[in-house]
Amino acid sequence: MSKMKEIGVAVLGFGTVGAGVVETLQKNGALLGERLGLRLALRGVADLDVKTDRGVAVDPALLTTDGAALIARPDVDVVVELIGGTGAAKAFILQALKLGKPVVTANKKLLAEHGEEIHRVAEEHKTEILFEASVGGGIPIIKALREGLCANRIQSLYGILNGTCNYILTRMEEEKLPFDEVLKAAQAAGYAEAEPSLDVDGHDTAHKAAVLASLAYGCNVPLNKVSVAGIRGMAAADIAYAAEMGYRIKLLAIIQGGADGVEVGVQPTLVKHSHQLAAVSGVFNAVLVKGDVVGTTLYYGRGAGRAAAASAVVADLADAALNLRAGGRRRDLSAVHAKTPVAFRDPGEIVARHYLRFSMKDQPGTLARAATVLGAHRIGIDSVMQKEAAKGAAYVPVIFVTGPAQEREMAAALAEIAAMDGVVDRPAVAYRIEDFE
Amino acid sequence: MSKMKEIGVAVLGFGTVGAGVVETLQKNGALLGERLGLRLALRGVADLDVKTDRGVAVDPALLTTDGAALIARPDVDVVVELIGGTGAAKAFILQALKLGKPVVTANKKLLAEHGEEIHRVAEEHKTEILFEASVGGGIPIIKALREGLCANRIQSLYGILNGTCNYILTRMEEEKLPFDEVLKAAQAAGYAEAEPSLDVDGHDTAHKAAVLASLAYGCNVPLNKVSVAGIRGMAAADIAYAAEMGYRIKLLAIIQGGADGVEVGVQPTLVKHSHQLAAVSGVFNAVLVKGDVVGTTLYYGRGAGRAAAASAVVADLADAALNLRAGGRRRDLSAVHAKTPVAFRDPGEIVARHYLRFSMKDQPGTLARAATVLGAHRIGIDSVMQKEAAKGAAYVPVIFVTGPAQEREMAAALAEIAAMDGVVDRPAVAYRIEDFE
Repeated sequence: MSKMKEIGVAVLGFGTVGAGVVETLQKNGALLGERLGLRLALRGVADLDVKTDRGVAVDPALLTTDGAALIARPDVDVVVELIGGTGAAKAFILQALKLGKPVVTANKKLLAEHGEEIHRVAEEHKTEILFEASVGGGIPIIKALREGLCANRIQSLYGILNGTCNYILTRMEEEKLPFDEVLKAAQAAGYAEAEPSLDVDGHDTAHKAAVLASLAYGCNVPLNKVSVAGIRGMAAADIAYAAEMGYRIKLLAIIQGGADGVEVGVQPTLVKHSHQLAAVSGVFNAVLVKGDVVGTTLYYGRGAGRAAAASAVVADLADAALNLRAGGRRRDLSAVHAKTPVAFRDPGEIVARHYLRFSMKDQPGTLARAATVLGAHRIGIDSVMQKEAAKGAAYVPVIFVTGPAQEREMAAALAEIAAMDGVVDRPAVAYRIEDFE
Repeated sequence: MSKMKEIGVAVLGFGTVGAGVVETLQKNGALLGERLGLRLALRGVADLDVKTDRGVAVDPALLTTDGAALIARPDVDVVVELIGGTGAAKAFILQALKLGKPVVTANKKLLAEHGEEIHRVAEEHKTEILFEASVGGGIPIIKALREGLCANRIQSLYGILNGTCNYILTRMEEEKLPFDEVLKAAQAAGYAEAEPSLDVDGHDTAHKAAVLASLAYGCNVPLNKVSVAGIRGMAAADIAYAAEMGYRIKLLAIIQGGADGVEVGVQPTLVKHSHQLAAVSGVFNAVLVKGDVVGTTLYYGRGAGRAAAASAVVADLADAALNLRAGGRRRDLSAVHAKTPVAFRDPGEIVARHYLRFSMKDQPGTLARAATVLGAHRIGIDSVMQKEAAKGAAYVPVIFVTGPAQEREMAAALAEIAAMDGVVDRPAVAYRIEDFE
């Protein structure tokens, strides 16, 4: 074992995931060495704060506040970036790539916003950036897409990618609680940030969707091509009405591609109770991938947290190390990024079924007039449910489940109905229904 | 593109999967070339029968009945073995490996029975054998275990690995049909072989379990260390009683490992309705993997069939080709196989809960005496259900759900109860209950 090749590892960012990576290397390093035939040797951990106890024993000599110096050390072969954000993280990543050192990162925001530049720099310096931990925590979904399913043209990809949102939706449904109350509880329990916008407004899911779509279709996916709606302020009533009709509401990333282009969106979506994505509860994540050869496959696991992310980071470290031993990158992602031009579908032309809830004055004819407007826009109605007015309320909820309709027509119909006499609480609640066909 | 490196591929066996591989290379070869930066070029297809139409257009010049000559051609770099069985398949695989040519196979039987020898020969000739298609059809579970989860000590692995059995169990439950009738229907529909033993007696699942266990624990797993029970003759009544108690019966491969050794078994197992493995129906497969870092992950997809297997074979071809371009194997599986000695747990010491069904004469005291025997063997009783006798039957079914108990004690208790006056239809039905803790 003494002659085993050593690969020097630098970890930037000693937060939750950084500490998890150090702990995993300590705990399973010997086993990993046996599996890989090489040793991942921790050369240093850089963080602005090297005082706080992270619950993992590290030789103080390994700790440094100088990330740039650590990256530059000749005995550092691979750099792990776990700082997050697009400031120092980006600078350090570019420094490492320009030195020809492969980078492992969990930074979806950086990849979504600056992926094209980062992949280009990796390409120019004949090195690579690996990012399994950026999507789906410990689920090896990036590897599945990039390698395991490489024989497939990807037809569609549906993901529950944000544990915070899924936790909130699960608790809202199970305990029949309002959004604000569950959000506060999630914040108190550490499942949600004090500033929850990145999660609950769908941006984090959008970053991850952009990363997955860029892999699936071999293209850069600018964030302005990703339509985003979050779960903030979702009404418990809609979760209950959806349940009555056999659906569960999930925040879904939906990626679809065909000859006419690619669409990437994030939105609350109704999923049949019997579908596997409906069974994904709490902080778990899942990704359903349809390939033209393999058919439907699904990947499920813990979407976040120290250990799950560490599992993914160390798997990437193993790949980077094996590639270094073999003389370089194995898969040339950057080239695919640069070469393939992809058209994005006009969001207005996307066709989907919808769950619509209007609040209507309890007067004759309003429901019929709304239905007429939908019909005029060639939107079929699969079912209608009018509930009794809540005690003391002047308005009744009216729910339409529509047939497949173009988003453009749907938006026009909703605007018309919102302007109708007898319709209040505008705009209506409108969620996509996904049949996974 | 004209200077793109070419990797020459030979396909042995032009049956269902072989035709699927050829079709996939034709259909998605260009896309794959773009993704990999190299071209998988089909050099030939060998089969004893080169006349039958396989529904895929192949240049007749590519067809040959001489597999050995095809393997030996200098322009063949990788060999795909899809003949099946342990005769010609083994000889061809060893020929290729001895020529230093990597092999891709779907042959779980061969790997389970001769894996040690095959891995040793691959090791000796510094080449590799890849076998993603041998377990779980198109699900990239081998890659997930070997690469994606390499940072983890695998704690347990639960798999629904045989589509035929799962199809039979699903139809028996949904349509309340007896085993024989569903088996006949499955045979007529092509979901089951005329000689169904390999599937329904659990042997195919055992082969796959041995392959997964050898990867998870880095050891050779002789088939005689795998305890096997199949689903042949399962009573529709047990499926119904299990359902009443909130369980579904699945044929599960169960692999667990710890400091005291590894256990590998295949048996009909009761799984809570709410568990994800219970939701896997029809010909689909799923594998649940627990790692000490990542926690629980799950992988799901079509477990068999031309296209799903082809997706896995071509993914392996891609890996083999990339490794050849990089100068050789990336992961050294054979070494792990040879180096690590592993203890296998004594099956008698495995602890599990059980579903037991006895047929008892409807006379006072029999149930109580059976319960007393269980107690004497320190087997706790979680619940008891006595059903009314079927019309005209002299016997009543009595179901016990036990607490955790050693297999050895369970076997002894069952033997004692079987010998009791008033107990008929011996031996009792006894299925494991899995709580996935």
